[in-house]
Formats: sequence, structure tokens, C-alpha cells
Amino acid sequence: MKANIAFIGLGNMGLPMVANLIKGGHRVWAYDLQPEAIDRAARLGATAARSAVEAVQQAEVVISMLQTGHQVDSLYVSGGDPLFKHLAAGALVIDCSTIDAATAKATAAQAMTHGLDFIDAPVSGGVAGAEAGTLTFIVGGTAAQFARAQPVLSQMGQKVLHAGEHGAGQMAKACNNMLLAVQMAGTCEALNMGINNGLDPGVLSEIMQQSSGNNWVLQHYNPVAGVMDKVPAAQGYSGGFKVRLMCKDLDLAMDLGQTSSSPVPMGAAAKALFNLHQVAGHEDLDFSSLLMLFQKVNRP
Amino acid sequence: MKANIAFIGLGNMGLPMVANLIKGGHRVWAYDLQPEAIDRAARLGATAARSAVEAVQQAEVVISMLQTGHQVDSLYVSGGDPLFKHLAAGALVIDCSTIDAATAKATAAQAMTHGLDFIDAPVSGGVAGAEAGTLTFIVGGTAAQFARAQPVLSQMGQKVLHAGEHGAGQMAKACNNMLLAVQMAGTCEALNMGINNGLDPGVLSEIMQQSSGNNWVLQHYNPVAGVMDKVPAAQGYSGGFKVRLMCKDLDLAMDLGQTSSSPVPMGAAAKALFNLHQVAGHEDLDFSSLLMLFQKVNRP
Amino acid sequence: MKANIAFIGLGNMGLPMVANLIKGGHRVWAYDLQPEAIDRAARLGATAARSAVEAVQQAEVVISMLQTGHQVDSLYVSGGDPLFKHLAAGALVIDCSTIDAATAKATAAQAMTHGLDFIDAPVSGGVAGAEAGTLTFIVGGTAAQFARAQPVLSQMGQKVLHAGEHGAGQMAKACNNMLLAVQMAGTCEALNMGINNGLDPGVLSEIMQQSSGNNWVLQHYNPVAGVMDKVPAAQGYSGGFKVRLMCKDLDLAMDLGQTSSSPVPMGAAAKALFNLHQVAGHEDLDFSSLLMLFQKVNRP
Amino acid sequence: MKANIAFIGLGNMGLPMVANLIKGGHRVWAYDLQPEAIDRAARLGATAARSAVEAVQQAEVVISMLQTGHQVDSLYVSGGDPLFKHLAAGALVIDCSTIDAATAKATAAQAMTHGLDFIDAPVSGGVAGAEAGTLTFIVGGTAAQFARAQPVLSQMGQKVLHAGEHGAGQMAKACNNMLLAVQMAGTCEALNMGINNGLDPGVLSEIMQQSSGNNWVLQHYNPVAGVMDKVPAAQGYSGGFKVRLMCKDLDLAMDLGQTSSSPVPMGAAAKALFNLHQVAGHEDLDFSSLLMLFQKVNRP
Repeated sequence: MKANIAFIGLGNMGLPMVANLIKGGHRVWAYDLQPEAIDRAARLGATAARSAVEAVQQAEVVISMLQTGHQVDSLYVSGGDPLFKHLAAGALVIDCSTIDAATAKATAAQAMTHGLDFIDAPVSGGVAGAEAGTLTFIVGGTAAQFARAQPVLSQMGQKVLHAGEHGAGQMAKACNNMLLAVQMAGTCEALNMGINNGLDPGVLSEIMQQSSGNNWVLQHYNPVAGVMDKVPAAQGYSGGFKVRLMCKDLDLAMDLGQTSSSPVPMGAAAKALFNLHQVAGHEDLDFSSLLMLFQKVNRP
Repeated sequence: MKANIAFIGLGNMGLPMVANLIKGGHRVWAYDLQPEAIDRAARLGATAARSAVEAVQQAEVVISMLQTGHQVDSLYVSGGDPLFKHLAAGALVIDCSTIDAATAKATAAQAMTHGLDFIDAPVSGGVAGAEAGTLTFIVGGTAAQFARAQPVLSQMGQKVLHAGEHGAGQMAKACNNMLLAVQMAGTCEALNMGINNGLDPGVLSEIMQQSSGNNWVLQHYNPVAGVMDKVPAAQGYSGGFKVRLMCKDLDLAMDLGQTSSSPVPMGAAAKALFNLHQVAGHEDLDFSSLLMLFQKVNRP
Repeated sequence: MKANIAFIGLGNMGLPMVANLIKGGHRVWAYDLQPEAIDRAARLGATAARSAVEAVQQAEVVISMLQTGHQVDSLYVSGGDPLFKHLAAGALVIDCSTIDAATAKATAAQAMTHGLDFIDAPVSGGVAGAEAGTLTFIVGGTAAQFARAQPVLSQMGQKVLHAGEHGAGQMAKACNNMLLAVQMAGTCEALNMGINNGLDPGVLSEIMQQSSGNNWVLQHYNPVAGVMDKVPAAQGYSGGFKVRLMCKDLDLAMDLGQTSSSPVPMGAAAKALFNLHQVAGHEDLDFSSLLMLFQKVNRP
Repeated sequence: MKANIAFIGLGNMGLPMVANLIKGGHRVWAYDLQPEAIDRAARLGATAARSAVEAVQQAEVVISMLQTGHQVDSLYVSGGDPLFKHLAAGALVIDCSTIDAATAKATAAQAMTHGLDFIDAPVSGGVAGAEAGTLTFIVGGTAAQFARAQPVLSQMGQKVLHAGEHGAGQMAKACNNMLLAVQMAGTCEALNMGINNGLDPGVLSEIMQQSSGNNWVLQHYNPVAGVMDKVPAAQGYSGGFKVRLMCKDLDLAMDLGQTSSSPVPMGAAAKALFNLHQVAGHEDLDFSSLLMLFQKVNRP
């Protein structure tokens, strides 16, 4: 079943997601604050909209991919011309932004008062996943909303997972990325200690993968140059998931820890390391470049 | 090819390892400081020895499974009647104890002066792995020594991995277990934060397993009661890998960090948490019980 | 010079502050959401007000002592009947609440548009300091505003320190309390390690005070029972500065770290410890009770 | 009362200590493995000895200032020509080295079998304190031994503190320096966060000194250049107490934590930071240079 879709937010993630929707036969109206981004979407086959309001005129589904909870709230609820007032009753709103769960819940509550379906559906998988259509969507919403959104999301990703009620998608993503940060930091420091003691990083990585130290980083994202092909470590830590985005996600995780009085000592320790790496001037490198923080530097 | 094997150290790990060697057709002379342990080994089919020296009289292979580097050094090199003096030239010595790499290297060097082959071969897999014959051996030694030991080790385990030169087995195990501790602590705190925010721990575990938070703990050793069967969490955290043994392994990892000037912030943070859990009276529980440290307690 | 003062927020801190203002000859109109609190203020000599708006009718100076930035914003700016609209031009508003710097700055900016003087003036010293009139005020505002507020604040405290422009009072307090948390945690763990090794805590405290380990905790707030009189440790950790208030202040410090991209590894580590202690059921004990987290427990 | 003193170990600390002993009228025989160091001591008025054994021939008191526990053990007990065999019964041995408490205790036990008095007396105060004669000695030994050593130590330092039995001097110093490391790291990060938020570091330092954040670092060793004169921060972090020496002291503290099952989360966090700073190439800077780790770097 093909749908009329409005897509708001056409950055590095949004554009390839639009491309995959169009590839799947959907009609897409595209809008972004940057006119050039709209042009790019138009070249992919989307209809250019001059405003968010214009984009949603015929929309059965609205997808947003923004940066902050404030932007999401402003777009749909509290901004100059809030979108929720312009949507046809029964429309489905899918917010793919990674934001705080509180805003996701509040936006969902507002959606309900307008007779709209809303889910929070932050993604995992990065730009590469967006381009390949292999993203993972972590969804918060009712079972019916989840079921309704699944066909559309499947067009852009490989896995569509239901975390729970509204906000649960954001919460689960915060938990996951906090754990990812912990694993990346722990893997960097274990590999670095091995290297400092004369172990071969490839051999040590293989041993830990076959033992209880196994994790996603060792499997897909080894931080030591020369161990894996096609990972950021093989390309000078360019591309991938930037240090400053990991810091942003860890900010959200720390906030979630605060509001729920949950102790997060390991997440906080990992965050401190990514922050130290960030202020040392590496915020635009891939997050596996954290290895550099541990390595011995030779100074004259 | 069946061998004459002396086995020194018949604790919870050693005894089932002896059983598997006998099952494989090897002849085993068994010794331990505890006479009852020797009796148990004898009931499994081993020949009881009244001393370590007696155990090695006809040994082509010696396997030791002790607690500390001091014990290993004392047994083979510096004790009252050091075993290296009693072994036939060309014998193969396999130390399966988890000890510091420095002692492993020094013992290997001494073995060479006596014309003996030596490998450090600490294990991963615990008592359950020892009983099932599914241990992983992480070996330090020459390629020839590794090749020579492989058939014997395969009798007791599923994977035999070559980490590098002498001491490398201990180093790689220290790196692996440090990373395991980091992952266990990180997984406990991520799951606890999810639970505090209303997420179902099974659903959250599944989501993280399918995302970048995936790791060995989520796959095989979930710390939340009710998520997995047959793990320590399903049995009140009894059995498994005790908190005090994890603390001991982390001591070794921290020492390795010190001697190699390797920063280990995440390992140190995890160690602090296991230590806090230990002093709170939980040292004999399985290490996944660390979850308790994070959970909200209701006090009157 | 005596002033007409409106005082909003009559909790454990606010009431003794009102008492000291009256002692100093000021006229005080008092308001709180709890009618009983207003009654108590009236018994101290204040005039009971039926609303915040009534309290400020004749006020030259307004002092508020609230819990959260949201409450402060709501009272003065964004609530149902914002106080800034009811103040005579030229009035001085002193917010003694400990809140986030961003709200303090925004409130100050709003005050300016109403022709009002505003300072943020969070306090250090606790209930005991409020009662004894020995509080420290850490002030953010212009030099002129600081000078204008000084006589009033001196009536309630011993030290009035100028941290910088608007918001700087809140920032400096966040920095100070983060450092205090670090020092308390570090002092607890150093003393506990000494005790575990057979040192006398009083002797060790004295040695560290005379050495480079000296700090405010050792001087005024020793966490080990029996070392000092009249500290919370001497009274079962009752009274003093509660664990949950320290957690709240650390939340503010972490937020300040986030918004300024400042790495705060030690503050985050201390926060994790106070959080662990809090969830273990000790949130209403004095914050020096953190020592308990480090102590060996004997379990049957 | 003037004594015949043998002084072993004439480094940056030992030499000025010798100078102060001579200034006090004592006769000093000096020995070091470096002949040039002996020459320097001779120029200060000491008698050059060609060996440690020669140095102690007429000694009533022996003072050692070495680097490691291994060196101390080797000198007195287990080396080629152990000094304890050459000392006249009743001699007093003062070991001022900073080493592990276990070696200090073992050495004291050996001294007793030779009829010698022994104390562990590590110092605090650095090279500047050694030169000015303002060191603090932290002593482990019996009350009688402490009393006997006091006059000699007073010649080299301002404070002579009795920590407890043998080994207690080393333990108390480890506790103190761990707390110092925690305070330095915490102070650096609090000041850096203040600076990032526009606060003046001198003003913030003053405010925290007058509040509950007060500590030895703020009083005597501010890490921000421009706040204090005559501290390492005022001299490009040269001189002072080197990062690698702080790392060494933290190694001892971590070992003490391990052997006594004492959780040391804050000490471990501080150690990780000093290690990260060390591997970044700053091991020979003063330890207050840790501030650099927190500061934002501008990269092209």
C-alpha cells in the first residue's frame, strides 16, 4: 500500500530515507529549513514544499528527522504555526529524531488530542544504514500504532522493534547507546592494554570475540586500524558516528538517569572519556577514534 | 595419542577437567593439598599421588590449576622441592591457572633451562564449561608448544586459541575479563535504567541484542531474573562466577595496566563497582548479581 | 537602613532567614504555599501575606528561596500572575534558590525589562548556617546590584561573595558543590582504606589535615563517627545536608558541564556514588553517610 | 644531640636532606649508586663512602631515600651484602622512601631480629620542602622508635607525625596522596567548568576557598596559570611533583586498596586521568598540569 508522506528534515539521514521511500513507491513531499536540501530531495523524486505546512497538506503519514526535542516540540506543538493543527484527523506522525523521552511523551499526548497517531521511532545504523535501507527503528507507541507504522518503516530499515508505550523508543535508544559507549570505551582500553603488552590487536580481538568479551564493537566496528576493512578505523576515523553525536546521545542518557534516579556510573565514566576526547579537538572524528585517548604519544 | 598426565590442583575446575581427560583415554596421576580432593579424582579413575613429585614420575604432560602466581612459582621453581627438577627432559607443562603474566613468563624461562616445554593456558568458561568440556583455553607459548598442547587441551575444551608468546595467554585473559566486567556493569546499569523507566527488561534486552549494544552478557548471561533460563540470575545468583573471583581477575588486569602504563578508566570503574558490591556482603554470589547494586531498595 | 522586604518560600532555610531579617530591624511580608509556614513566619514577627502578590505590595526588596528553576521562573515570569508585573520599578529581587544558571540569567533579563534589579544569590551553609546567620551568599549580578544587596544579605550571612554577572552565582555554587562532593567521596574512601589497614581514623584525619590531603571535609565535617563532635557523623548522620539534596546539586553541576562541553569525570564519579547510596535507601541521611557505601558489611 | 648518620640515596630529595642534617651539626656518611651524587654530598660537608657498607661503619642512625620497595628490601635484607648484617645492634634505621607497606613491615620485622630500631618515614613536601627543611614525615613504628627518631627528623622537616605501627607511615602517605590526587583532579575540573562558563578563575578559587570546596590545592597549589605566584602553574608546570611520580604513588594506593579489599572508586578515577595525561606525553610536568587534559583545544 502506497501512501502520501510528508518528510520534514532532510539532512544526512533524512535524504537517503526519502530516497528509499520513493524507491518503495510512496509519494513524498519534502521540507527542510535549508532550500538546497529540498532541491536535493526533489532531484530524488520528492515534491518540494515551501513550508512544513504545505508539505503536510495531503499527508497520510508525516515523518520528521530533526536534531533536538525543542525542534520537535516547536514543529508540532508550540511553534508559530504548529503542524498538529494542519493534519487531517487520523494521520500517522512518525518522529525519527533522537530526543528526550519526556518531549516524545508530551508530543504524543498532544497528538492524541488532535485525533492523530504518533510514534517515537529513533533509528540506529547511521548514514550508511540510512543509505542501504538497513536501519533499525526502535519504536514507542501503542501496539496498533506500531503495526500501522511497520510497513512504512520497513521501507527504510531492516528491523522495526517495539520498545513499549510512547517515549519507550527514545528510552530504549538511550539505554542502547549508553551501553554502546561503554563497550566502545572498554574495548578501546582492553585492546590498547593488549597492544602495550605486545599482543597483536587482530589476534586479541579474535580471542575476545570467541570469549566472554564479545560485543558489537569487536564484531562490526573494531577501533584499531588494520584489523577490519571498511570501518572508520580503516579510514582515519572519518565517516561513521561522530564523537559529538555520541556526546549528545550520552547527554540524553544522563538526563534519563537523572530523572529516574538511576545510577549510571559506567555510562558517566564513558561520557567523561568522550568529552575529554572531544575537547582535545576530535569532535568530528568517528567515535571509535576514542582509542587515540589511550595511546602513548611520543613527544620530543 | 594417549599420554601420561600429572594433574596438580583438583578444585571445582580441576576435577571435571580430570574427568574429561580420563574420558579421552589419558592416564592421569592426580594430586592436591586436600586429600579428599585426591580421593574424588581417584573415584573418577585417576591414580592418587601422595605428592606432586610422585604425581609427575611418569608424566609426559603436567597440568596445573592453582589459585595464585605465588603458588605456581612455588610448585615449579622456588618451593621446597621444585617440580621442574623432577620432570623428564622434554615434558610439556601446561599451567591453566589464572595468574599474572610476569610469573608466567618467568616460569616459562625457568622451564626452558630445564629442557621443558611450558605454556600458560588460562581458561574461560567456568565450572559449567569444565564439566561440559566446553572450556576456552587462551594460550601463551611458542607455535610448536601450542601445537603440541592442542590435542590434550581439546580433550577438555571446545576452543584452543593462541594469544602469542609466553605470558600472552595470561595477558589476553586479563584483557578479556576486564572487558567482560565492563560489559556486565554497563549492561546492568542500562537494563536497570530501562526498568526504572517502565521498559520490560526482556524487550529491552532483545532490542539491544539486535542493535549496537549487543554483547556476550545479553546473549548468554542476562543479569535480570526472569529474562533467561539456566543463568545465575534465574537461580538467585548462585553458582556461576563469583564476585570475589571477578575482583581477583580485575586485580590482575589493574596490575597489567600499571606495569604497562596503560590507562584503564573503564576497567577501574567496573572494578570499583564490583568491590563496592563485594564489601556489601555479596562476594560469594555470581558476578551478574552486580545488578543489585543499582536497584532501588525500599526501606521502612 | 531598614527595608520593606517580601520573602517567598518559608522552608527549613527560609524561616530562619526571615528571623534574622526581623532581628536586623527589617519589615518582612512572608508568603509560602503552605499556610502553616506562613503562620510560623508570623510568629517570628513577619506580616502574613495571602499571596505572593500581596506580599510584594510595599516591597523594596523581594527574596525568594524555592526548590527548582521552574518554580522561580513561574513565580516571577511565566506563572499565572507573574510577580515582576506587580513590583514597583527599581525594586531589588534576590533569588536565593539553588537553580540552573540558564533560568537565573533568563529571569535577570526579564527583570531588566521591568526596570528591576535582580541577583542570583544561592547560599552555602545549610540549615545550621541559616539559623546562626553564618551563611555564605554567592552572588551573580552587576557590581551595583551586588553593592545594593550586600547590607541585606549580611543580615543573614557572614560572607557575601561576588562571583560575576547574572547566573555566575549559580555557576560558582555548582562548581563548589561538585568539588565538595568529590572531596567528601575521596575523603570517605581514603579514611575507609586507612581503617581497613588498621589506622586510627582520628590520627589519619589529623595527618591528612597537616598534609596535602587537607580539605573542608577533614576540617569541619569528618564522616567517621567518633572523630569530631557536633557533626552529622556524631548523630547517626541525621541533620546536615541530605544525600538527595547533594544529588540534586550534582544534577545541576552535570547539566552545567553538558551545556558548556566541560568534561567532569570526577564530579560524575562522585555523583554515581551518591546515586548508588541514594537508591540503597539512604537519601534522607546526611551526605557524609556516603562512608557506609565503602564499609565492609558482615552478613550471616 | 649530634649523631653519626649514614645517608643512602642522594637524589633530588636526599641531597638537600643531607645538607640540613649537616647544618644541624650531625656527621653524615653519604652513599649513592651514582658517584657524582656522592661528590655533591661531599661538597655539602658529608663524608664520601665507597659503598653502603662503608657508609654505615660508624652509624648510629641510617637514613635511606630510595625509589622502590624492591630497592629497600635489597639494600637492607635480601641483596648481595645486606646492610642489616653490618649495623651495630641498637642502631636506628629510618627509611624515608615511599614504598609499599608490606615491604616496610617485612623490613621492620627483619630489623627486629637484628636488634635494630626501624621506622618507615615517607615524606610529604617535595624538593622545595626538602630544601627549606619544611618536610612532613609520616612515621610508622613503635612509640619509642618514633620518639627516638623525632629529633633527627625535625632537623629536616617541620612536622613529624606518628601514624601507627610499622608500615602505618606508608599507609597513611598512600591515603593522603590518593586524596591529594582526587582533590587536584576535582579542583582542575571545577575550575575548568567555571572558566568555560565565563567565571574568573581567581574569583572562583577565592569563592571555593571560602566555602565547602576549600582544599590544599586551592590554598597552596592552584593549577590555573595567573592565579598564584610561585606555583608550578606560574612556571609552565615545570618543577613541582611530576605526573609520573603521582602515578607511581597512585599505583601504591591502588595496591593497598587491593590487598585490603577497600573500594577506591575516586582514587581509581583520578589515577585513570593522571594516566591519560601521562600517555599524552606530559609525564615530566608537574601534576597540576592535569588541568590541560580538561581544556578545550583549538585545532585547525
